[in-house]
Amino acid sequence: MSTFRDRTSVRTKHEGEIVNITSWAVDRIKASGIKQGIACVMVKHSTAAVALIEDEPGLRGDLNRALESMVPKEAPYAHNAAGGDGNGHSHIRSTMLGQSLTFTFDEGKPDFGTWQQLVLLELDNAGRERAVLIQLVGE
Amino acid sequence: MSTFRDRTSVRTKHEGEIVNITSWAVDRIKASGIKQGIACVMVKHSTAAVALIEDEPGLRGDLNRALESMVPKEAPYAHNAAGGDGNGHSHIRSTMLGQSLTFTFDEGKPDFGTWQQLVLLELDNAGRERAVLIQLVGE
Amino acid sequence: MSTFRDRTSVRTKHEGEIVNITSWAVDRIKASGIKQGIACVMVKHSTAAVALIEDEPGLRGDLNRALESMVPKEAPYAHNAAGGDGNGHSHIRSTMLGQSLTFTFDEGKPDFGTWQQLVLLELDNAGRERAVLIQLVGE
Repeated sequence: MSTFRDRTSVRTKHEGEIVNITSWAVDRIKASGIKQGIACVMVKHSTAAVALIEDEPGLRGDLNRALESMVPKEAPYAHNAAGGDGNGHSHIRSTMLGQSLTFTFDEGKPDFGTWQQLVLLELDNAGRERAVLIQLVGE
Repeated sequence: MSTFRDRTSVRTKHEGEIVNITSWAVDRIKASGIKQGIACVMVKHSTAAVALIEDEPGLRGDLNRALESMVPKEAPYAHNAAGGDGNGHSHIRSTMLGQSLTFTFDEGKPDFGTWQQLVLLELDNAGRERAVLIQLVGE
Repeated sequence: MSTFRDRTSVRTKHEGEIVNITSWAVDRIKASGIKQGIACVMVKHSTAAVALIEDEPGLRGDLNRALESMVPKEAPYAHNAAGGDGNGHSHIRSTMLGQSLTFTFDEGKPDFGTWQQLVLLELDNAGRERAVLIQLVGE
């Protein structure tokens, strides 16, 4: 059994941006030399998320529209009233979607299905520099 | 330390079906011979989910009604307009609930509480054949 | 490679209570002697959740208001009609937010960003005694 970790930095440009990090994760698992186990990908921020989705332009818009419908940007947030960055909705969306995501891998490759891609979601109201980690445990 | 993995296939019949896979997970952990660690269960599809819930008929309906309220099937989805399968809502619900789930186990048994059952949710607009994986790491 | 686990009990006082358990998790990882790996924190109940959020009073209220907006307490739930505890909404919210959460750690410390705190959310309609587990795998 062994562990492996790596990190990357993603510079987003705007709210609602969805960055496909699948090939980065695939590459890091391959580089680790670990064949089978569990991977955890984590974004070190409370206004971003990581998720699995079929990454096509239509769904990117659909996901953002669904988030706006469920957690509207312009609702009154105490976080904003307290002198925050006007990003109360971003925090709630991030907690709902999740700031970490765990998946399985075998033969040195993630067990993603054909339509599953790993993405980073920028949920804050402006682009940000985002630190992303991958941690493997397995053998 | 060691790893163990297995897979199963679940044939669902209709949208909103909730399939209890708790006994499968319990059995696979027992079969692994690994006593303590972390388990990750993953469905290899972007229109299904895995979750923990008290699995009783009332809540099965409640969960489906809540999903319909939060992410309505008949809303306009760009994914559908682009020639998809009319399952834009399925993708969004799947990403929200999660396509993988991680839990702890000890003495060869999952740490589920009395009212926690592990379920597969069919979120697509028809039954499907679903590949489900379990991966353990521990000792 | 090795594993480590511990548990704690949290006594909540009311619905919507958010209990910061970050220092407990930090302390348990330090005590384990394991330097790098994956941690899974799990609440053994289907009407509570664990999540990462910036833990400040404004957002605590915002998160509860967002949950009430998405999954209203007073909607008709079959779970309640069947003689439940009037906590149908609690179960749905718990399944949405997640009863387990996985994160990475290194050098004996969780990889939490500056604004990420680990919290237990009481989602039931009264205070409860909550069992919380932490399981580490790593080396």
